[in-house]
Amino acid sequence: MSSLYGNKIKISIFGQSHSAAIGVVLDALPAGTEIDFEELNSFLRRRAPGNAVYATQRREEDKLEFLSGLVDGITCGAPLSILIRNTDARPRDYEQLRDIPRPSHADYTAYVKYGRAHDIRGGGAFSGRLTAPLCAAGGICLQLLGRQGINVAAHIAQIGKVCDRPFDPVLIGENEDHIREMNSLKEKKFPVLDDEAGRCMLEAIEEARRQGDSLGGIVECAITGIPAGLGEPMFDGMENRLAAALFAIPALKGLEFGNGFAAAGLRGSENNDAFVMKGDAIKTATNRHGGILGGITSGMPLVFRVAFKPTPSIAMEQDSVSLSQGKNVRLTVTGRHDPCIVPRALPCVEAAAAIALYDAM
Amino acid sequence: MSSLYGNKIKISIFGQSHSAAIGVVLDALPAGTEIDFEELNSFLRRRAPGNAVYATQRREEDKLEFLSGLVDGITCGAPLSILIRNTDARPRDYEQLRDIPRPSHADYTAYVKYGRAHDIRGGGAFSGRLTAPLCAAGGICLQLLGRQGINVAAHIAQIGKVCDRPFDPVLIGENEDHIREMNSLKEKKFPVLDDEAGRCMLEAIEEARRQGDSLGGIVECAITGIPAGLGEPMFDGMENRLAAALFAIPALKGLEFGNGFAAAGLRGSENNDAFVMKGDAIKTATNRHGGILGGITSGMPLVFRVAFKPTPSIAMEQDSVSLSQGKNVRLTVTGRHDPCIVPRALPCVEAAAAIALYDAM
Amino acid sequence: MSSLYGNKIKISIFGQSHSAAIGVVLDALPAGTEIDFEELNSFLRRRAPGNAVYATQRREEDKLEFLSGLVDGITCGAPLSILIRNTDARPRDYEQLRDIPRPSHADYTAYVKYGRAHDIRGGGAFSGRLTAPLCAAGGICLQLLGRQGINVAAHIAQIGKVCDRPFDPVLIGENEDHIREMNSLKEKKFPVLDDEAGRCMLEAIEEARRQGDSLGGIVECAITGIPAGLGEPMFDGMENRLAAALFAIPALKGLEFGNGFAAAGLRGSENNDAFVMKGDAIKTATNRHGGILGGITSGMPLVFRVAFKPTPSIAMEQDSVSLSQGKNVRLTVTGRHDPCIVPRALPCVEAAAAIALYDAM
Amino acid sequence: MSSLYGNKIKISIFGQSHSAAIGVVLDALPAGTEIDFEELNSFLRRRAPGNAVYATQRREEDKLEFLSGLVDGITCGAPLSILIRNTDARPRDYEQLRDIPRPSHADYTAYVKYGRAHDIRGGGAFSGRLTAPLCAAGGICLQLLGRQGINVAAHIAQIGKVCDRPFDPVLIGENEDHIREMNSLKEKKFPVLDDEAGRCMLEAIEEARRQGDSLGGIVECAITGIPAGLGEPMFDGMENRLAAALFAIPALKGLEFGNGFAAAGLRGSENNDAFVMKGDAIKTATNRHGGILGGITSGMPLVFRVAFKPTPSIAMEQDSVSLSQGKNVRLTVTGRHDPCIVPRALPCVEAAAAIALYDAM
Repeated sequence: MSSLYGNKIKISIFGQSHSAAIGVVLDALPAGTEIDFEELNSFLRRRAPGNAVYATQRREEDKLEFLSGLVDGITCGAPLSILIRNTDARPRDYEQLRDIPRPSHADYTAYVKYGRAHDIRGGGAFSGRLTAPLCAAGGICLQLLGRQGINVAAHIAQIGKVCDRPFDPVLIGENEDHIREMNSLKEKKFPVLDDEAGRCMLEAIEEARRQGDSLGGIVECAITGIPAGLGEPMFDGMENRLAAALFAIPALKGLEFGNGFAAAGLRGSENNDAFVMKGDAIKTATNRHGGILGGITSGMPLVFRVAFKPTPSIAMEQDSVSLSQGKNVRLTVTGRHDPCIVPRALPCVEAAAAIALYDAM
Repeated sequence: MSSLYGNKIKISIFGQSHSAAIGVVLDALPAGTEIDFEELNSFLRRRAPGNAVYATQRREEDKLEFLSGLVDGITCGAPLSILIRNTDARPRDYEQLRDIPRPSHADYTAYVKYGRAHDIRGGGAFSGRLTAPLCAAGGICLQLLGRQGINVAAHIAQIGKVCDRPFDPVLIGENEDHIREMNSLKEKKFPVLDDEAGRCMLEAIEEARRQGDSLGGIVECAITGIPAGLGEPMFDGMENRLAAALFAIPALKGLEFGNGFAAAGLRGSENNDAFVMKGDAIKTATNRHGGILGGITSGMPLVFRVAFKPTPSIAMEQDSVSLSQGKNVRLTVTGRHDPCIVPRALPCVEAAAAIALYDAM
Repeated sequence: MSSLYGNKIKISIFGQSHSAAIGVVLDALPAGTEIDFEELNSFLRRRAPGNAVYATQRREEDKLEFLSGLVDGITCGAPLSILIRNTDARPRDYEQLRDIPRPSHADYTAYVKYGRAHDIRGGGAFSGRLTAPLCAAGGICLQLLGRQGINVAAHIAQIGKVCDRPFDPVLIGENEDHIREMNSLKEKKFPVLDDEAGRCMLEAIEEARRQGDSLGGIVECAITGIPAGLGEPMFDGMENRLAAALFAIPALKGLEFGNGFAAAGLRGSENNDAFVMKGDAIKTATNRHGGILGGITSGMPLVFRVAFKPTPSIAMEQDSVSLSQGKNVRLTVTGRHDPCIVPRALPCVEAAAAIALYDAM
Repeated sequence: MSSLYGNKIKISIFGQSHSAAIGVVLDALPAGTEIDFEELNSFLRRRAPGNAVYATQRREEDKLEFLSGLVDGITCGAPLSILIRNTDARPRDYEQLRDIPRPSHADYTAYVKYGRAHDIRGGGAFSGRLTAPLCAAGGICLQLLGRQGINVAAHIAQIGKVCDRPFDPVLIGENEDHIREMNSLKEKKFPVLDDEAGRCMLEAIEEARRQGDSLGGIVECAITGIPAGLGEPMFDGMENRLAAALFAIPALKGLEFGNGFAAAGLRGSENNDAFVMKGDAIKTATNRHGGILGGITSGMPLVFRVAFKPTPSIAMEQDSVSLSQGKNVRLTVTGRHDPCIVPRALPCVEAAAAIALYDAM
């Protein structure tokens, strides 16, 4: 594997779903930085399963143990290392998957790559559980960005066929109403802009769950307060760096900036963003470019959307193969799985974006 | 800037639209590899403007000068360096852009980042012209992949509102008909699967051009013959690496693998790909995952789509600002520009994908 | 800090002398590799202080806790993470050093870099204690190299004015006598080739210790069984890579390969190594080049020497400054320190070399 | 090969002794920086062979062709690329070396690594000629450092048995006399501190040349004006980074900082550098640490020494093997070679150090 990310800061994630612990080493944070543990724990709780209908029944406290890098809660310049013990692991649940890979899961590709040595328990290092250390590192970056006036917020833009209304890409973060709206997403149990749409999404998830099925969705993320000029094209442009971080999140299959795929159907005159003076500042009248031009931030809100496929682990019987016997078999997946990963993936999107952005500053 | 890419091989691109030359250094190719210059030139001609309706009127021969790394056309182990002289540069065309940035172009962000020192002529290093060395490096990787039975092909999936039919993600590359179809795309002047759709696209481009406007589009790319097991998750998974390379292509604003954004609207039972034995081989019955599971190639064709925004340089008058005077002004862009970048971006997509894939092997 | 190393494998070290724990993440080891824990522990004991005259009185058990990356003692492909708890930490010993930096120690430069936030306790991340995770990672690489017939051995070549006899750079590893000699070094409490010289060294250390002083020394390391052809010049040549790893060891101030500095005083006719056929193999008659030519291994034993300065923490009163008062003061260092770091640094040299070598393969 | 270096800036070197050209791409220099071409050419002339007794008879003009990255002599933010044409190449001289590798040269290891495809002409990419682009990149870094008050100077400390007097590691750069001494080295044809020693060195070289032999030597380099606090331990400490750059210079076999290997024979009380207040500044009374403590610069002059082996290409008949016949043969090397590489390697040392230092700032 290659569980490292970063140029300026360096993040090294470790662990498997059922190993003794999972964790992250975060190198090159500036010394003298205070970590707000309460805020960090509160951020991590947003990806914890809780009692939500859409989440796994696995219960993990996700208590962060800071092993190094801090003196009295202040970074000391040495690499920060964070440990999260795995406690509610049930290895028995996964025995049959050693032989019969789950459709559309990494079971098979991990088997090809690591052979019989692959840790099949809970998906090993391919488990969504590995996003907990990602969120620990990202939560710290979010704090550091926040102190520079940079605000990262995301909402569930779509679950199945149900859509939330989108961010206003120009006004977001501009006035108190919009800032309040961004921040309210961080408090909501189910972060949508339109709560009515949220209720429909929850119903859709519940229905899928009842049928032993799962649902995909889309997360839209906006980042305000970013200075213009970040990103190093061609290969370390802001889009490249965000992409390289975001695609580390399991089940993420698509990424678009600003108008994204919709821009493909537009004309230049429809998609271009005119420059305008707002007081002394240069802004764009619209924000179809999503805050990045030529790989470099423009100073407008950075807006992107990511698509998640439906959780591949479903309760319905499916076709698969027996690796040992080389023949087609039927598979019924047991164990505890999220019928929809999107709500819990949302803070991971914020975390990955924060890491990529902080690294680029 | 950071114009380097790669772990195993290393690519370093240099040049501006109107510098003396542009080029690329390609380090760590295996020694003893023959370069097929004719095939390489023929690949590069696919991104050259030619006389097509959709292309700039700038005429560059794009003659590759191999400075080092070869002895008698065979790689010798030393870094390969390739030079392309700029000949048809007309710096006068760009004078007014020093002060008035083009909407949705990198003029403004480059100004923020590099100040008055930025090379504004032809967009400097942000010019689409820099995709010529990308294609030179990628064309070589395509040859090396081809010798291992890996075939990379792309078609124009959409221009404006007009869509081509998609690749068959399971059958592509499987039998002679489908292989012939893939290869025919490399011969076509306007590479689409459905030539009738292609004619409509060309008409749409011509109409946009007449109106001083431009069009965006989508390229779909398929790669067959890839062994299962490539990619190093979490951060060097095959999606991360492809994304990090592809977003180097100017105007690329979205990327999706397999079902991509469409998967967001599906259920697990609709999106999962059942494993099946085909002879002794393990395949999937469908290919909604696009050939990558958990960041690792599955052995099925790798299929992805990228969205290009419409060329921002349009002939219509637009709103912008004067950087020196800090006030709103009107801008009419002159100079030579592609009314639709998509056909010429298509080989760049193949090139970037080939580089990312070869680097991962 | 930047506590990461490696291209193929990636090592990320964390911890401070008095943090809760220290450790290492080792990414990209091949799956299916068995770790011999007994051998690893036995290697780590070679750098543990024990009861030796030359070592600190600090007592750490250095128990390795494997958190992830293993299933039943076999690597599973996920990053391997190893934790070592700090138990015998005595933070009081270091209070005065917050204000008065020890001469020739990192106290002052760490203060400049990290300010008052630097973890002064035990030298923080600059402590020799951080070589324990280096040895844990290196010990694993040594096992993997050993299984490919590569043998890494080192001896104390010099302590103060007392010298051991050098390795025979041609014969080492060639026949049973020489292999036995190499391996015996790993069993010896005080690894020298000439035990009489070893006794003199121990006396010199004991004398320095009694006088509240310390001693430097030289370690010579030889690696046999390396295939020819490793190393990627110009900047990833075998010398560059070994140097980049070895200079991570605290107090290491010099490095030379083969004849090294002595070659400066020789003529080409005296320093060149003639090629000769030995059976079907191409060898060199002498080995003044130390097994590396042009940055690439030649197949001859790789031989290098590293110089360690005397431990800067001595009991004698010294001149220093008060950081808070900006005036000259006298300093008497208390706490527990090695009067000679060289014997305990020796396995660190083997470890760093093994990491660099394994990474290059 | 891996001819790339750098974290903040990126250097990519290409070319072989007899390829059409050699050159370098220098990415991520700050935009708006003026290049002093006259100063750069004058720096490069210091490594040019000239008519000196110690140098090859090959005559190369080494004219720098700037292909990109500059507008009117000012960096524009795009990668800077520099080309040097090879003109006086005589491939015939090297034919016999395809079969019979020169003792202690890279001929054999390059053959092992790259096979028959290796460019044997003039040593290919292993030629000292590749230090010309290294010096071009380093010369630019020297200018940028100089503008920040950082002065890099080197002298020939030893040739064969003849030694120059060393730098005064405390006073160097401190007062006008010492600054004048540093700068005078850059003007001297044969840069030594003691010109009488220089004359003896030249005689020794002439004598070796007459006898068809060659000589090694030592270069001592001092860097003044460096701020305290540079370097990122453990693996990107200032020693690690300098080492990784310096070992790219052909024939360099040893490196030591401050007292280096001599420190091995000293006690802590003899090797420690007391801190003292000099006005408001914290300095050390002596500078045995060579300006680096714990991998981080201390603000004292950075002083290091590097050892060069004697040129392996000597005119005397030597023992070697025939690769094709697998038998011992005698070899007489013809062609043009430096009887002592040290004087021409000296600016390369300055260049590599400047690159490493600038990259760390």
